[in-house]
Amino acid sequence: MDTGTTAFILCCIIGLTLMIPGLALFYGGMVSVKSSTNMMMMTFGAVAIVGVLWVLFGFSMVFGTSYGGFVGSFTEFAGMTDLLESQTTIAGLPVSLFALFQALFAGITVALISGAVADRMKFGAWMLFAGLWAVLVYFPVAHWVFAFDGVVTENSVGGWIANQLAAIDFAGGTAVHINAGAAALAVAIVLGKSAMFGQLRKPHNVPLTLLGAGMLWAGWYAFNGGSALAAGNSAAIVMVTTFVATCAATLAWLTVEKIKDGHVTGVGAASGAITGLVAITPACGAVTPVGAIFVGAIAGAVCVYAVGLKSKFGYDDSLDVVGVHLVGGLVGTLLIGFFASESMPNATNGLLYGGGIEQLWKQAVAAFAVMAYSFAVAFVIAFALKKTMGIRISPEDEEMGIDAKFHRDSAYDMQTA
Amino acid sequence: MDTGTTAFILCCIIGLTLMIPGLALFYGGMVSVKSSTNMMMMTFGAVAIVGVLWVLFGFSMVFGTSYGGFVGSFTEFAGMTDLLESQTTIAGLPVSLFALFQALFAGITVALISGAVADRMKFGAWMLFAGLWAVLVYFPVAHWVFAFDGVVTENSVGGWIANQLAAIDFAGGTAVHINAGAAALAVAIVLGKSAMFGQLRKPHNVPLTLLGAGMLWAGWYAFNGGSALAAGNSAAIVMVTTFVATCAATLAWLTVEKIKDGHVTGVGAASGAITGLVAITPACGAVTPVGAIFVGAIAGAVCVYAVGLKSKFGYDDSLDVVGVHLVGGLVGTLLIGFFASESMPNATNGLLYGGGIEQLWKQAVAAFAVMAYSFAVAFVIAFALKKTMGIRISPEDEEMGIDAKFHRDSAYDMQTA
Amino acid sequence: MDTGTTAFILCCIIGLTLMIPGLALFYGGMVSVKSSTNMMMMTFGAVAIVGVLWVLFGFSMVFGTSYGGFVGSFTEFAGMTDLLESQTTIAGLPVSLFALFQALFAGITVALISGAVADRMKFGAWMLFAGLWAVLVYFPVAHWVFAFDGVVTENSVGGWIANQLAAIDFAGGTAVHINAGAAALAVAIVLGKSAMFGQLRKPHNVPLTLLGAGMLWAGWYAFNGGSALAAGNSAAIVMVTTFVATCAATLAWLTVEKIKDGHVTGVGAASGAITGLVAITPACGAVTPVGAIFVGAIAGAVCVYAVGLKSKFGYDDSLDVVGVHLVGGLVGTLLIGFFASESMPNATNGLLYGGGIEQLWKQAVAAFAVMAYSFAVAFVIAFALKKTMGIRISPEDEEMGIDAKFHRDSAYDMQTA
Repeated sequence: MDTGTTAFILCCIIGLTLMIPGLALFYGGMVSVKSSTNMMMMTFGAVAIVGVLWVLFGFSMVFGTSYGGFVGSFTEFAGMTDLLESQTTIAGLPVSLFALFQALFAGITVALISGAVADRMKFGAWMLFAGLWAVLVYFPVAHWVFAFDGVVTENSVGGWIANQLAAIDFAGGTAVHINAGAAALAVAIVLGKSAMFGQLRKPHNVPLTLLGAGMLWAGWYAFNGGSALAAGNSAAIVMVTTFVATCAATLAWLTVEKIKDGHVTGVGAASGAITGLVAITPACGAVTPVGAIFVGAIAGAVCVYAVGLKSKFGYDDSLDVVGVHLVGGLVGTLLIGFFASESMPNATNGLLYGGGIEQLWKQAVAAFAVMAYSFAVAFVIAFALKKTMGIRISPEDEEMGIDAKFHRDSAYDMQTA
Repeated sequence: MDTGTTAFILCCIIGLTLMIPGLALFYGGMVSVKSSTNMMMMTFGAVAIVGVLWVLFGFSMVFGTSYGGFVGSFTEFAGMTDLLESQTTIAGLPVSLFALFQALFAGITVALISGAVADRMKFGAWMLFAGLWAVLVYFPVAHWVFAFDGVVTENSVGGWIANQLAAIDFAGGTAVHINAGAAALAVAIVLGKSAMFGQLRKPHNVPLTLLGAGMLWAGWYAFNGGSALAAGNSAAIVMVTTFVATCAATLAWLTVEKIKDGHVTGVGAASGAITGLVAITPACGAVTPVGAIFVGAIAGAVCVYAVGLKSKFGYDDSLDVVGVHLVGGLVGTLLIGFFASESMPNATNGLLYGGGIEQLWKQAVAAFAVMAYSFAVAFVIAFALKKTMGIRISPEDEEMGIDAKFHRDSAYDMQTA
Repeated sequence: MDTGTTAFILCCIIGLTLMIPGLALFYGGMVSVKSSTNMMMMTFGAVAIVGVLWVLFGFSMVFGTSYGGFVGSFTEFAGMTDLLESQTTIAGLPVSLFALFQALFAGITVALISGAVADRMKFGAWMLFAGLWAVLVYFPVAHWVFAFDGVVTENSVGGWIANQLAAIDFAGGTAVHINAGAAALAVAIVLGKSAMFGQLRKPHNVPLTLLGAGMLWAGWYAFNGGSALAAGNSAAIVMVTTFVATCAATLAWLTVEKIKDGHVTGVGAASGAITGLVAITPACGAVTPVGAIFVGAIAGAVCVYAVGLKSKFGYDDSLDVVGVHLVGGLVGTLLIGFFASESMPNATNGLLYGGGIEQLWKQAVAAFAVMAYSFAVAFVIAFALKKTMGIRISPEDEEMGIDAKFHRDSAYDMQTA
């Protein structure tokens, strides 16, 4: 065991956990004051249910020996108890720590989807959706992308994207962001538009959204850097590209916003930063710092427009999970095919660095496979819930506000008298 | 010196410090808008005074050579200066770092008590209470529980719970949570009920409370994991149980709340998470991940009811320090006697794993001793302050709001005109 | 490479990034509700632009081989690409990680200045000022103070304060706080007083300011402790002094505030903590824990008065960057000459420990040089921007509120109806 690497990932758990309130606030600040408690609770609730499922059998489904590259054994590490008794390590890390690191990826990915259902989804239906989507989509897809052959036990067989296809996805451009973004699109379509759709959505609390973005930024170093699974040069490089892509995306978003709308906004600064983080997530080990400036800037500029797609196509992705996570994830995953540099940890050249078209093709296959699978299954789950328990609150309750009706009170009571 | 272990605990200091604003917000969001500055200042003020006392003689009282297992030498490490000059280490850690790690435990424990005195305690009296309770209760009790024989210097003699009784308390179920909870009960009784007692207390800002809970969750990994004092398998396992108990307690609290009251609340999600963290604190090194799900779920379900005790018995524990920390701490401390598993770092079997009744008995003795001592001395301190300087603001000032009267202004000025 | 030390600094990046939302909130909570989005965006914007400049040529200007001790090579490490390919380390750290650690120092220092220009500076002018001041002031001054001879490449020549003068500045009392504070004074003078100057500035959201202070406190351990560049005894000691100075300064500020004004405030608790952190930043490796109590207490007490200087001299340093960072930085830098103790990492005795006057003289020269250079160049930059693009919004826009006019909306929309 390497105590330095172990120390790094132990502390990454603290960083990743900051993403829970970070995401809850990033979303919670953007919704109406009548929905902010509900919005924040969807993040906490999703992490809670996924966390329990993860220990019971989720880790086993992702990192157990594979059924044909599609899903891991349901029982191999069930309960995680044997995991603790064995003293095996992954690259010098306790296996239990690796399992916890990945547990937070699972919880946060599911929580990302909640941005699409603001103001109008029954909390019980959300919790059920979160649990079902984790089991039916996230666990298999994470197996495809993150389960490298032999990662937990010496001869274990892993997932098809990581091993057979060999697409590059350092920290989850496909498994996390495209995955959550495609599910968000599906559930937004099934759920239907909120009463406010078409109006300009005014965030009720911009400081909370900026705070949330800042906390996500901090935690994201654990997400991306920690994915190096070692306290060394790769983790350091990955953090450099993560940092500068975020800076560049923020500048790009604000610049395009200024040109397009005549002003720059707090939500724009927050969204720009998150877009940079999303886009660099798959690419952080593949592109140089200067390449990361391009990835961030392109993603920031593209996504300012992508968040407008919902008006055009008429789906109510309330807080732009599609525009930021799906599109940002696609941008980052595909740009690897252009900007990857052999000098980086992934050791591959993209088209602009003299590499061939092959890597770009692999990236596209991985992105499309995850997008299609996640969209389809999320649609089926949401549709099944809609037809059975119902997933949407009544128009009257939506008008009154989901917090007041379902969570006892609105989030604030600011009257001093 | 082990640089990996040192790195881990250095970073735990960052995590523990996040618990200061985390706790301030968790409490600050739950009180009325007229008291939120005061509420947050009690946390910052308590940490500030305890921090200075810790350096001057607190560390010495906790980890200096023992007077009969009850309290350490007042002067052995006074000023912490000699500590820095010596190059001794504790399990590969610089002693000064161990001292700082423990300083934050002390500060946060004292700050926990403030939740019982919301809206109505003089700030000066609170600061004096914080200093006196730290010296007369926390420093001795931490000596009982955390001072293992020989921990700082080779032949030093430590506290009676850690060494003679050998109760299991990995990170402070007794010394932190039962201790603070019992003191909270005492001071709430001496202080008397607030004018609002009996009415439903409406939190003024639920997002801040959820944010606070999230920051506490993140920092708690440093609290529990750091208590392993090594970047290794034990710390990793402890973080796994800490994570999943929190998830399970959140689900349990929300489920019981739904059944009992017909809705789930943001404060419920926050309180559920904190309850899980409290209950797993003593048990995090003793129970398996599946055991941790039980500990968390039981604590969450029990504490939904425990927070109702104040109405029944008529003490105004404003923000449920008793219901969450005292009861949650008792649940976790006692469940070790049932759920402890030999395969875990504490290497002990509870009743359900074939162990005897002995461990449960030890747990009960430790819990009761800390509870009784803390309650009694806290009562005497509060009573003495009440009879001398007075500890309560006037009914008129309470009506007007403690912030407006004693801290110049209310916490917010949201008028745009 | 030392994985423990690498793990420590990797995690410091997470901590330093928390200072971005931390600073944004500390400032954002103190301004009027009409300016809080703008205030927070100035921090995010400054970090974004400085981050990109840092990768392109900033790191090279600070740590490239020196032109006569005044500035490093503009091209040596341009783009940071070669840096990644080389496997050189700094004291066991990947060079890319050292570069990222220092990138956050640069970004945060520039953002500190924004506190002086609240409510009234054009956002575009702020962004240009931030970029220009970084290039013309921060990069050279950081070279003077932080570029020790041979730090990145074996025979490289560093800056004059670090090497020729040999003043003690552990983590940036001069390069960060005096530097930002002096620039704040200059830009506040050029910009002119806000319409509200002379009235008591009421913070619009005290909880956000306290939260920001708490997050800054947590991140500051990464700032100061990380500056030891090793997971060892020095970092531990530095964190101890950082902790206790902050506690002492908080107590001192509140005590003096109580005596002076008759009450203690939430902004006072936050400002006291930050003042302690500022003052201990240069001194954290030079003074003992008891010495740190004195440094913190003196700084806290002095700065309560220093924030009143703006009324006396008539410059509108809106959020007291001068009173806290310039004066606090001076206090800490100069007190090293008195309180430094040979037993600490800097291994120097101050006047009170039997040392001579020489160290005090060196401290004064460093402080004065940075102050004068930063003030002069910041004044010229601000003046040039004023005469060309204009730096101030119109009185009508200031009256209406900078958020509503330039950032589309005010920060909050709390109407439930």
